[in-house]
Amino acid sequence: GIEYGLMQLTAEFYDLLQKSGQLNNAELLKVYSEWNKGRLQSFLVEISAQIFEKEDPFGQGMLVDKILDKAKQKGTGKWTSQNAMDIGIPIPTIDIAVSMREISALKPERVLAAKKYDQDTIDLPEKQKLLTNAEKALYFAFIITYAQGMHQLKAASDEYGYELSLAEIAKIWRAGCIIRAALLEDIANAFEEDKELINLLLSPAFEEKIKDTLAAARELVAFAANNGIPMPGLFNSLSYFDAYTSARLPLNLIQAQRDYFGSHTYERIDKEGIFHTDWS
Amino acid sequence: GIEYGLMQLTAEFYDLLQKSGQLNNAELLKVYSEWNKGRLQSFLVEISAQIFEKEDPFGQGMLVDKILDKAKQKGTGKWTSQNAMDIGIPIPTIDIAVSMREISALKPERVLAAKKYDQDTIDLPEKQKLLTNAEKALYFAFIITYAQGMHQLKAASDEYGYELSLAEIAKIWRAGCIIRAALLEDIANAFEEDKELINLLLSPAFEEKIKDTLAAARELVAFAANNGIPMPGLFNSLSYFDAYTSARLPLNLIQAQRDYFGSHTYERIDKEGIFHTDWS
Repeated sequence: GIEYGLMQLTAEFYDLLQKSGQLNNAELLKVYSEWNKGRLQSFLVEISAQIFEKEDPFGQGMLVDKILDKAKQKGTGKWTSQNAMDIGIPIPTIDIAVSMREISALKPERVLAAKKYDQDTIDLPEKQKLLTNAEKALYFAFIITYAQGMHQLKAASDEYGYELSLAEIAKIWRAGCIIRAALLEDIANAFEEDKELINLLLSPAFEEKIKDTLAAARELVAFAANNGIPMPGLFNSLSYFDAYTSARLPLNLIQAQRDYFGSHTYERIDKEGIFHTDWS
Repeated sequence: GIEYGLMQLTAEFYDLLQKSGQLNNAELLKVYSEWNKGRLQSFLVEISAQIFEKEDPFGQGMLVDKILDKAKQKGTGKWTSQNAMDIGIPIPTIDIAVSMREISALKPERVLAAKKYDQDTIDLPEKQKLLTNAEKALYFAFIITYAQGMHQLKAASDEYGYELSLAEIAKIWRAGCIIRAALLEDIANAFEEDKELINLLLSPAFEEKIKDTLAAARELVAFAANNGIPMPGLFNSLSYFDAYTSARLPLNLIQAQRDYFGSHTYERIDKEGIFHTDWS
């Protein structure tokens, strides 16, 4: 599931850099290679760089440009999302990665729809500023994706009695698998320092990383929204963060609505108990 | 499932108007009542207005402010999302509504997290401009939510041989249920005019409605992102639209990654067949 999230993110940042940075494959190779030397170091960033430099064996140009934009799936992302819903853990960055594979498969509909709706012209920000923001926002969204996945594993461990050590799991992944990444060392450390840690966002080390990158994530979501660039992995990472860090959410209205139309009752902030009101 | 999406949207716009418009319950009552006289007319907007005017039977103030912001669920939203994943139809606005109920339930974690992360100070745009944009963006997101739900029903009808008439379904819902809304008349008409209509976004009548409201949706997503207001229903409605109307998505990179690490093969844009490359 985490793999689905990270892949979607590497793809949508590739889209952003192409559209608003007008980067060609040689430049993308350079950027992803640079990123792979820093805190974004990971197998998926590394192979993306290698993909950008592969020539088309059948003709002129680079192979990546010739690949059809319909992503298939074997069902592991779907399974992760369905399980998360069963155990009540929110993993929206992973969910949307599954949805995006589905949307990608609707190619004929997309081609039809694109003809109906004018494409927005895209702003071209200063390139170095764009790259700096992209590196930060991608790191932010990678963290959120791991945070969601680890949160699910912790809840699953409790639910099914797995007795998982999340620190050990992070180390095993770090040693070798598709989501191996430098970030997993920090994740292993966070869960080692606090064995009861519920969510990475609550660890001091990750608090610092998030605070360093949050403004860039906000800026890029706003930019993508204004320019019609679909970055749903980043969007869901940011709104997950904003919701998870809200002491008060507006879902009191939803509880009121549920009580209004279905007498589903509600709790109060100021006293214990279950309440029902005749609203009409 | 559609109901979950619409409820989440009415709640997050309530949050937006409170935070960035500083509207009190009396003003919210007025706004939702106004909206209910126009194209947003619907049972859920109507009862929201009534909720804003209900006094607390136990003390001073309005009841809605005393309700705990933990929304429960009976599982119908979850079931819709899980089924959509089984039949491969993207319904991200509905998915995120399910996730938001889950996040709302994590109240102790949220209170802890809110203490760690400074709340952003919120811009206060000109009130009439905010209300105009909010009405448009909410209408946009309502349309997208119905579009996703009807898309799922159409695919389910094909998958399971239901032979559903989507026009009839829209009329039945219009006649009386929690998601009854003026919009369902337009939806019934769209499916009556074109019995093979795959997605509402492809109907001329809805194309017009979307074009009238899209800019406001973009503006509010950017605003919410910059101001830390969680509006994931609106975020997912916009990125669904932007992805669904993209003739080309960056998921060619995902197919390349899948072929790189798992030999899952890929298709090409310029010739038939299934291809595999030795990327490394």
